[in-house]
Amino acid sequence: MNFSISARSGRGRAGRIETAHGAFDTPAFMPCGTRAAVKGLEPRELRDAGIEILLCNTYHLTLRPGEAVVAGQGGLQKFMGWNGPILTDSGGYQVFSLAPLRKITDEGVTFQSHLDGATVKFTPERVVEIQETLGSDILMPLDEPIPFPPDPKVARLALDRTHAWWKRSKATRGALFGIVQGSIVPELRKESAEAIASSDPPGFALGGFSMGEPAAQMDEVVAYTVSLLPDAKPRYLMGVGMPRDILAAVKAGVDLFDCILPTRMGRTAMAFTSEGLLRLRNSKYARDERPVDPQCDGPCCRHYSRAYIRHCFSVDEMLGPKLLSLHNVRYYGKLMKDIQRAIRENRLERMTP
Amino acid sequence: MNFSISARSGRGRAGRIETAHGAFDTPAFMPCGTRAAVKGLEPRELRDAGIEILLCNTYHLTLRPGEAVVAGQGGLQKFMGWNGPILTDSGGYQVFSLAPLRKITDEGVTFQSHLDGATVKFTPERVVEIQETLGSDILMPLDEPIPFPPDPKVARLALDRTHAWWKRSKATRGALFGIVQGSIVPELRKESAEAIASSDPPGFALGGFSMGEPAAQMDEVVAYTVSLLPDAKPRYLMGVGMPRDILAAVKAGVDLFDCILPTRMGRTAMAFTSEGLLRLRNSKYARDERPVDPQCDGPCCRHYSRAYIRHCFSVDEMLGPKLLSLHNVRYYGKLMKDIQRAIRENRLERMTP
Repeated sequence: MNFSISARSGRGRAGRIETAHGAFDTPAFMPCGTRAAVKGLEPRELRDAGIEILLCNTYHLTLRPGEAVVAGQGGLQKFMGWNGPILTDSGGYQVFSLAPLRKITDEGVTFQSHLDGATVKFTPERVVEIQETLGSDILMPLDEPIPFPPDPKVARLALDRTHAWWKRSKATRGALFGIVQGSIVPELRKESAEAIASSDPPGFALGGFSMGEPAAQMDEVVAYTVSLLPDAKPRYLMGVGMPRDILAAVKAGVDLFDCILPTRMGRTAMAFTSEGLLRLRNSKYARDERPVDPQCDGPCCRHYSRAYIRHCFSVDEMLGPKLLSLHNVRYYGKLMKDIQRAIRENRLERMTP
Repeated sequence: MNFSISARSGRGRAGRIETAHGAFDTPAFMPCGTRAAVKGLEPRELRDAGIEILLCNTYHLTLRPGEAVVAGQGGLQKFMGWNGPILTDSGGYQVFSLAPLRKITDEGVTFQSHLDGATVKFTPERVVEIQETLGSDILMPLDEPIPFPPDPKVARLALDRTHAWWKRSKATRGALFGIVQGSIVPELRKESAEAIASSDPPGFALGGFSMGEPAAQMDEVVAYTVSLLPDAKPRYLMGVGMPRDILAAVKAGVDLFDCILPTRMGRTAMAFTSEGLLRLRNSKYARDERPVDPQCDGPCCRHYSRAYIRHCFSVDEMLGPKLLSLHNVRYYGKLMKDIQRAIRENRLERMTP
């Protein structure tokens, strides 16, 4: 993996990351292709929406169809028909949020599949191996999230384990980012940044944000954490977030984002627009002939009215979720292009969400 | 509406129907856009799949969103973003199959909405009015289906009512086809064809097929019924069917078809292919790198493997139903183009399903 910075505005940077499966401009947003599909959307539609890199979930994919099946199909990119880079998470977050009967030891975490109850073990070595087998371009190490709000003792144990696991994490293929944890505690973030940076990873992920902390506090701790990281490496803020969160983090120097919001909100009839958030189930849109966003030139807004999209949701036609997911992903794709341009034109600070 | 026949092969005809919203080649297949959406598929995808005309359901659309809403949006074509002709059914079939507490009189049929229990009344006049308000290009009159197998007394009453209702059916906009009923009874079909033809409609629909009768019997009664109809008018075999049924009916002189099979089977992981029907939930496809149909040049087969489509169904990703519906609709679209070519080249009789 290669990362180059081509423009700066304040602490924000515009650049480009090259991977074995192609390059993408930063700051970049990754839609979530959890189970090797961004819900309802085809790769060509994502590409048209300005998306250049996807995130897929190791936890889901190792359970079904299994990394060996994916590898046998030529890797995740070929399997899902996405001709571009893919980042995979470590699966740790899902183990801690989805899997029943999990047991954490220094060795790793044992849990039951939420699908069939099968016992599965994740170790730092194993999750990297799974991601390498999947053929991921950017890989994440196993970590232990700190619940929010952080209890000092719990945080201490989780952070020590995250750092110990990090030392055992080695990739031979793909770029293995380090994950800086530490919740909202600046001292822990500093300690974690140093522990992770000691092995000079090709990039840094910021974990444990958007856990319920106020947005202003997130902005502050993100900015502080980024200030501790080497300038030349890309920074990825995991699981964040709303457009305002992304813009604030870019201003602090973050380069990469993922979030389920554009697709999840699309599936629940909520649209990101230049006029703010639209709740399209509202009956006031039943006869609204305008496109979802009059400022948008995407297929959803070129071909369909608010009235039609609302109708699709009213009668449970899957075109509704599909079209609105696509619209929202495009909104995020355009947001990132606008941000990149603002950085190149050195007016990032004046940009508002 | 204008219908012209440009080629013949045996009793089969290739032609073209012109409507206010554009023309289409016949024999033609119409996917079902029941609630103003062909499940999961966008109009541009349908067009790319070789589809030139859609069917929409009056029963569903009058309940939600209501024909007034559709009319306020510029009509059904504009509402759903389909730049082409639309045929609407009368709603009668759904009243008799879906609606509870229906009460049939000579005046019409009163029923409760299966959605909210509201009392709705369909009369021959009313269903044409609804279809005109929707902006349909080809309209269907209210009829009373004859349950299969036909009881002579029930069939007699239903047929008399269908013919009495037909006399009251008048359209001022769009082409109102007549519907020939009569179940599998040749005498009733003959009587019905004469009763419907007496008011010289612009086209004839053949109702009451694919009700459970053996395929060979359907072929025979369809062929007999078609032989009773004027040559210069298009013939539409309602709700039929499998590719073999369509080919047999084209050989008898039918010009127009609709069926839910390509989309319904697509949603249940069954694919029409040049190698026969594939059941993609079968575990033997879990590692099958081949496209769904190696002979198909559509987006599903160009970009995805059987293994990937199967995975999407296994993990409930809506891309599976969407891609396979599109594939099946394309299969039907190509079938009709192949049939049209076989007629032009006068080799229809040698064509096999």
